[in-house]
Amino acid sequence: MKSYRKEISLHVPSRHGFLKITPQIEECVRESGIQDGFVLVNSMHTTSSVYIDDEEEGLHRHYEQWLEKLAPVLQPGDYSDEVIGEDIVDSHMKRHLMGREVTVAITSGRLDFGQWEQIMYGEFDGGRTKRVLVKIIGE
Amino acid sequence: MKSYRKEISLHVPSRHGFLKITPQIEECVRESGIQDGFVLVNSMHTTSSVYIDDEEEGLHRHYEQWLEKLAPVLQPGDYSDEVIGEDIVDSHMKRHLMGREVTVAITSGRLDFGQWEQIMYGEFDGGRTKRVLVKIIGE
Amino acid sequence: MKSYRKEISLHVPSRHGFLKITPQIEECVRESGIQDGFVLVNSMHTTSSVYIDDEEEGLHRHYEQWLEKLAPVLQPGDYSDEVIGEDIVDSHMKRHLMGREVTVAITSGRLDFGQWEQIMYGEFDGGRTKRVLVKIIGE
Repeated sequence: MKSYRKEISLHVPSRHGFLKITPQIEECVRESGIQDGFVLVNSMHTTSSVYIDDEEEGLHRHYEQWLEKLAPVLQPGDYSDEVIGEDIVDSHMKRHLMGREVTVAITSGRLDFGQWEQIMYGEFDGGRTKRVLVKIIGE
Repeated sequence: MKSYRKEISLHVPSRHGFLKITPQIEECVRESGIQDGFVLVNSMHTTSSVYIDDEEEGLHRHYEQWLEKLAPVLQPGDYSDEVIGEDIVDSHMKRHLMGREVTVAITSGRLDFGQWEQIMYGEFDGGRTKRVLVKIIGE
Repeated sequence: MKSYRKEISLHVPSRHGFLKITPQIEECVRESGIQDGFVLVNSMHTTSSVYIDDEEEGLHRHYEQWLEKLAPVLQPGDYSDEVIGEDIVDSHMKRHLMGREVTVAITSGRLDFGQWEQIMYGEFDGGRTKRVLVKIIGE
């Protein structure tokens, strides 16, 4: 069994944003030399997501509104304690809706994907550099 | 390390539907000869889900209503662009709520499951043949 | 390739609850002797979750309210059949929002985590002993 590990740095200047990271993951798969196995791609933070979707600018705009509706920014009166900053709780909730991680099969040295699958990064607490972990095991 | 790969074809004639696919995945595990490892089962499409749940007809009827409430079909006025077909955005959202993939442990050549766990396929944009990827690694 | 398997027993006396299980998973990783690989941690039940988040008491209180809002306990009139107990459907829905499982990379014999990542167990149908499966593969 071979393994490979890399951290990818990402920076979304605004509070929310969606980025396609398929090319960086494909580069990791090539670097690993692994032909057959699994790649795990996960956010190393608890307020951002790695997920799989079409890369469609229109989708992102709809997700932005949809996530705000399902997991709105909390108002001061909603808080029962002072432990968590007022603008962070909804970021955790949005991240749960979109997920933390994906596992993708590697076959013949490539991401084993359907036609429209892309690996996306969803940021819900931007403005600083974040990290995504890429770990590959296989042969 | 051994590996195994198979695509399973599924066809849900209506727009939405839920199918149990545990038997097909068990057959893959047997065919693979792998005794100990992980099986990854994922939709190869961005508008359908693979998830784990009880197989209960009653659950499906409730999920149908619940998903429509949380991720309703968008109305023409909700659209800010023409890129995405009017009846597709909600399918992507429903898929995110139910998830893309599951990873299941294989122990002694079998799916290592609790009593009620079944692998389910959730379709949110049916009417054509879809594919599920089964990838197994282990020994 | 080496593998390791363990079941962890958990008991949340109330209907809902959130527990940090990182220490038990770290102990499994040590016991396995595996330096490089993946650990899969999943609920063996269909009404509880394993997910990754900050360990923040304040978050749990907000999640409790948030999950009740998105996936409320159904009322008798909401039921179209008698198959599923009246107080179980929402537990399945809450579990889907929080997820069934996590896969975590193991690097140099440790969970390969960002600063705030903890493995959490979310119970949505407590009052009896539940099981979490820990399966590790690697070298």
